[in-house]
Amino acid sequence: MEEYTVIGKRIPRIDAKAKVTGEAKYAADFELPGMLWCKMVRSPLPHARILNIDTTLAQRLPGVKAVCTGKDFGGWKWGWMPKTRDEPPLAIDKVRYLAEAVAAVAAIDEDTAEEAAELIRVDYEELPGVFDPEEAMKDGAPQVHDYVKNNLSWDFHMDFGDVDKAFRESDLVREERFETGRVTHGYLEPPAAVAYYASSGITIWAAKQSPYFLYRHLAACFKLPLSKVRVIQPYIGGGFGGTKNDSLAGDFCAALLSKTTGKPVKFVCTMEEELMTSRRRHNVIVYNKMGMKKDGIITAMQSRIIADGGAYTAIGPLTMYLTGIMSTLPYKLPNFKHDAYRVFTNNPVSAAMRGHGVTHTRFAAEIQMEMMAEELGIDPVEIRLKNAIQAPHETVNKITVHSCGLSEGLKSIATSERWKKRLEKRKRADYISHGVGISAAAYLGGARQRGHQSCAAVIRLCEDGTIDYLTGATDAGQGSDTVLVQIIAQELGVGVEDIDIKRVDTAYTPCDAGSYGSRVTVLAGEAAMKAARDVKEQLARIAAKNWEANPEDIVFRDRRVYPKGSPDMSMPFDKLAKIACYSGSGAVIIGKGYSEYGIEILDFEKGIGNCGTSYSFTSHLSEVDVDLETGFVKCTDMLIAHDCGRPLNPINVEAQNQGAAVQGLGQSIYEQFVMDRGKTLNPSLVDYKMPLSTDAPRIEVIDIITNDPNGPYGAKEASEGAIVSAPPSVISAIHDATGVWFKEQPVTPEKIVMALRAKKQG
Amino acid sequence: MEEYTVIGKRIPRIDAKAKVTGEAKYAADFELPGMLWCKMVRSPLPHARILNIDTTLAQRLPGVKAVCTGKDFGGWKWGWMPKTRDEPPLAIDKVRYLAEAVAAVAAIDEDTAEEAAELIRVDYEELPGVFDPEEAMKDGAPQVHDYVKNNLSWDFHMDFGDVDKAFRESDLVREERFETGRVTHGYLEPPAAVAYYASSGITIWAAKQSPYFLYRHLAACFKLPLSKVRVIQPYIGGGFGGTKNDSLAGDFCAALLSKTTGKPVKFVCTMEEELMTSRRRHNVIVYNKMGMKKDGIITAMQSRIIADGGAYTAIGPLTMYLTGIMSTLPYKLPNFKHDAYRVFTNNPVSAAMRGHGVTHTRFAAEIQMEMMAEELGIDPVEIRLKNAIQAPHETVNKITVHSCGLSEGLKSIATSERWKKRLEKRKRADYISHGVGISAAAYLGGARQRGHQSCAAVIRLCEDGTIDYLTGATDAGQGSDTVLVQIIAQELGVGVEDIDIKRVDTAYTPCDAGSYGSRVTVLAGEAAMKAARDVKEQLARIAAKNWEANPEDIVFRDRRVYPKGSPDMSMPFDKLAKIACYSGSGAVIIGKGYSEYGIEILDFEKGIGNCGTSYSFTSHLSEVDVDLETGFVKCTDMLIAHDCGRPLNPINVEAQNQGAAVQGLGQSIYEQFVMDRGKTLNPSLVDYKMPLSTDAPRIEVIDIITNDPNGPYGAKEASEGAIVSAPPSVISAIHDATGVWFKEQPVTPEKIVMALRAKKQG
Repeated sequence: MEEYTVIGKRIPRIDAKAKVTGEAKYAADFELPGMLWCKMVRSPLPHARILNIDTTLAQRLPGVKAVCTGKDFGGWKWGWMPKTRDEPPLAIDKVRYLAEAVAAVAAIDEDTAEEAAELIRVDYEELPGVFDPEEAMKDGAPQVHDYVKNNLSWDFHMDFGDVDKAFRESDLVREERFETGRVTHGYLEPPAAVAYYASSGITIWAAKQSPYFLYRHLAACFKLPLSKVRVIQPYIGGGFGGTKNDSLAGDFCAALLSKTTGKPVKFVCTMEEELMTSRRRHNVIVYNKMGMKKDGIITAMQSRIIADGGAYTAIGPLTMYLTGIMSTLPYKLPNFKHDAYRVFTNNPVSAAMRGHGVTHTRFAAEIQMEMMAEELGIDPVEIRLKNAIQAPHETVNKITVHSCGLSEGLKSIATSERWKKRLEKRKRADYISHGVGISAAAYLGGARQRGHQSCAAVIRLCEDGTIDYLTGATDAGQGSDTVLVQIIAQELGVGVEDIDIKRVDTAYTPCDAGSYGSRVTVLAGEAAMKAARDVKEQLARIAAKNWEANPEDIVFRDRRVYPKGSPDMSMPFDKLAKIACYSGSGAVIIGKGYSEYGIEILDFEKGIGNCGTSYSFTSHLSEVDVDLETGFVKCTDMLIAHDCGRPLNPINVEAQNQGAAVQGLGQSIYEQFVMDRGKTLNPSLVDYKMPLSTDAPRIEVIDIITNDPNGPYGAKEASEGAIVSAPPSVISAIHDATGVWFKEQPVTPEKIVMALRAKKQG
Repeated sequence: MEEYTVIGKRIPRIDAKAKVTGEAKYAADFELPGMLWCKMVRSPLPHARILNIDTTLAQRLPGVKAVCTGKDFGGWKWGWMPKTRDEPPLAIDKVRYLAEAVAAVAAIDEDTAEEAAELIRVDYEELPGVFDPEEAMKDGAPQVHDYVKNNLSWDFHMDFGDVDKAFRESDLVREERFETGRVTHGYLEPPAAVAYYASSGITIWAAKQSPYFLYRHLAACFKLPLSKVRVIQPYIGGGFGGTKNDSLAGDFCAALLSKTTGKPVKFVCTMEEELMTSRRRHNVIVYNKMGMKKDGIITAMQSRIIADGGAYTAIGPLTMYLTGIMSTLPYKLPNFKHDAYRVFTNNPVSAAMRGHGVTHTRFAAEIQMEMMAEELGIDPVEIRLKNAIQAPHETVNKITVHSCGLSEGLKSIATSERWKKRLEKRKRADYISHGVGISAAAYLGGARQRGHQSCAAVIRLCEDGTIDYLTGATDAGQGSDTVLVQIIAQELGVGVEDIDIKRVDTAYTPCDAGSYGSRVTVLAGEAAMKAARDVKEQLARIAAKNWEANPEDIVFRDRRVYPKGSPDMSMPFDKLAKIACYSGSGAVIIGKGYSEYGIEILDFEKGIGNCGTSYSFTSHLSEVDVDLETGFVKCTDMLIAHDCGRPLNPINVEAQNQGAAVQGLGQSIYEQFVMDRGKTLNPSLVDYKMPLSTDAPRIEVIDIITNDPNGPYGAKEASEGAIVSAPPSVISAIHDATGVWFKEQPVTPEKIVMALRAKKQG
């Protein structure tokens, strides 16, 4: 194995200093001369016709510069696919969820804007609402949109092999109903932006994890060419696939109000606004049916899911696709049928979140499998090892897996002291029951569909040997900037401190599909590697002349350059840079590259082919202490054996696994939006209970190295797998502690107490 | 000749709208949250030892955040060449010119900063000063710097052929003393910048025509890698080679004070500060000796020049080089000797200005030639045609000329009604005498020396077919952005409105040597052309598949793409862009290129080889009315036949010729700094008399097309030639009107009246 100098090293985040010193500027920190503030007017009703909007009083308020309503956008709507563009920047004829934005004001300061927003009078005719997706599918239910029937926002179907035949031939078939919760991303930076609309186009400093989405949305909304839309990315305080992975009312209104007033316009969502209105994870009901032979071999699985889509489609079709496409991993599954229904309700919009789509169905399948293994008397590790795929593998729906560390991961967990001691049932007190659970999951890395889905990189060599690196890929907090810089440092044989990664700016950085689907390391990493190799080739040609060597034989290492085998002849890298830039009339050394891992087969409609470039495998052990009196669960320990191909930066991989696992823990036992007829009753981080640091377990991460051929240096994803594997392992541990199978997230103390009471009584 | 769709068209400036609406932001318009203001403390003496600087009172003033003095820069100095780095950001032990900056303050607003600057007490020991370069060269003169003797800042010598022998063999030899004035660039935007120094490096919004100079200076001054210095370029309100082509005290102090305070720091020079302290054109004494045969053929020329360099070297060595290197054009000159001496004085610093270096010696040589032709009875046109070079031509100092429209230009002037009617001596009144004069000049385009002197371009195709264009080349007002965009539009067969040129930003745009030496169209143009062709090749490969054609046969024209000869099969350009970006997993189409016109021979020390990539030729006719009683001169008309190879944008070429000619007119008869022992007595645009629009003559520009092989589409320079040719033609016209040869610029009414009186008396 090649010895790397920078790859695989525990290099601290390059943005750490700027972040801890407060020097890092976030969107809300931006101010421009003459800047106005924008505030939204939001609907107090979940479903209502808008009869009239009277802005007279607001416009009369001193300091108010402009007001806009839905009609000012000329009927433009956005959405992930052309046929699902159903969401207007501001509601037009009716509101479809509570707190939907219906108007916006721009005023000289935040207070004036707030006051003006309160002066806008909207007359509504309340309509009957629908808040439960199963109710919403019924005939006669209130219709959220006219363009579909029975509130069916999107459906997606897969059918491979013959599930009916397989179930008939199985020794054991079970079907259960599972449900995942209404959870949110919980980033600490709420959405914010400053927009400036001039004759040269729109410039917007916006908190986005995928800034090129906003770039396209603004161009479409304002009918501008893409070259006239400039999205500048400040530092981002977390994204996780939420609203920062999409556009929102504030973005469009700030741009429009800037166009009207000729001034820059800023908005900053309050945390309440964010939690009331922003994209959240779909809450999903999963009817899961599984067939098994006596020896535990899975014969078939059939899942039917009903997802609460909320008021608009957003990226929902992709969610539905992901609920099914990944179900054929990580276990051999010769027969699979999946029917996914996304249903409109008058709840806030559901969309993407870390572990997108897969969390729901993997939770159902893992628990289902455990329940059946229990019935068949098969050990949780054994059932998984029996069914685990081995690479290379092709699923029934033609996902091709080139590397798989699942069995190795499961074995490393099975041989751990933690797993061996599970039968000891340690007790801290009589009323505390200890439990250990495991799970396994697969997740995709390098997500892409057909389309403009590449990542690209441009690298410029400075004459002093330092390096400017331009990428459109976003580090929303996951640490990818550090990894990308490591790749360039590795290729050019320099240090990470010699490379400066520039903030994403759509006017300057190459187009990028976005930071989602664990694509940055895999795809932007490939692009960075290629661009660095482009620079290296140019330099090697110049260096080779010096020694009359072949350019291919020039070694770049430890900030020195030399012909292969002759490190004693080396020259410093910065000297070569100077020679290169100063040759003849001067050269400007620029490297470029973009990701090209091929898509052989990809059928989005049928769920066939590779949704990712590569696939990670996570084996996850959780230990819990359950208070049998109060139902309170404390997760004490986790052990995660994660196959990310090769950890390019082990600290980052560890941190991502830890973060995903804790977020998954939150969803398992703590977090949920409490809703009342479309109203979020706990829109604050005090009442919406994310795990605190004191709630986090000790987490040990074991890297399973598999060296995938489709990732730079063999790397795959490392940031999402553990959020998929955490809930089933935690809930399996709760079962181990209580003897009860919980099938609805979150497993709250109330549910535990009720279940234990019922068990006692039953 | 190929038919161009965009090149050669009269396309209005792409920045016109932003500039006329006031939307264009200049450096002084930038404000950042928490920003401080910087003001300078300046020396009231032209030459003095600094005994003590007491900043106590200033630091106590409420609102003052930091103060710095020369010692805070650790002895760092800058200058054009390593051995001439003699200028500190702030004076350290002594001041060398009046108004030199000695300290700087940063305070919460401009008034407080100003007040604080006044509270800083500097104790000086006045030293004897020297203000005349010929005096300064003498033994015993006060020494401005210790590191040279006799105040010799720089000397430069050329010696080709045998001038002594040639003079002996000549029929007529004359030697005269000429002098050019102390003039300034007169841009309307004074220097300004906002600097922010953070742990990530320096970001500065600065008014620079060559931003990469400041980029290097800041990196060197603050010992930062180049990748950590970000110079962002606002719109620029004129440059002409002055202070905006270099760095200045404010740039360094704003950065240092930002480092000290952690806040952004801004400075804006007042017009008085600018005119008191900024770089100005060298005033030069030229002793010019010329030999001729009876028939007017020039046999030899010998020039000795003494230039007032002021207090520091700055770019002076290049000025000295240019006073000589270009003297072997535009006339055949088999023997040439040149000795240039740049002398330190206690005047403000002399440096570059439009027509850099060449204005002095061409003025001397043209008038000298006219005087001798007059003596020999040879017509001004005839003497020039006889001596004019023809392309291809190599000068004695190995300048190679591939295209030359001089004879054609002279003939077009000679056949004009204006020239034919010159003998009529039209009179508007008895006391008004009309005069017509001509001149010729050559100027270089695409200046570069050895070193990192290229221009580069990066072009990104947006998926909607519009184009992002990144260049490090600066449009300081000359219109080059429009020309560069035209080049890309021509290559890709689209419209200029489809291309968006991004502001220069050293973090993102490729490195560029700068906007000087008429290099942008020639070199940045070459880079733009190459980058566009790189994009075109990538697109052509994709398009070719569609028609099973050869990529080389794909035509891009009128926003459509088709196989050669089959325009009926065409597809829209934006459709091809979409296909390209959306192929497979998506492509990111980026083109890159940099200028590479070779330098075969270039010896800066000896003045051998090509200082430019190509050479323009200007033939210039001026008409004047001279008031014989008051000496007042009104230039009524100019006719300029300019060989710029090919005018890529004829409006721009016309405007550049007009601007250069009017600026040259100013220097000929209006402009001068009035000095008193190092003090500029007229540091305002009221007292420093630039021509107003009412002073500007009617100017007709004739394009002489020669299609140079070393420029994109045959283009050469168009912005400097006419400032070289204007003074001799105007002064020749004054001679035609008065019968007096004036050899010192400016030819003021006073000089004319005195000369006419002397003539009458003599």
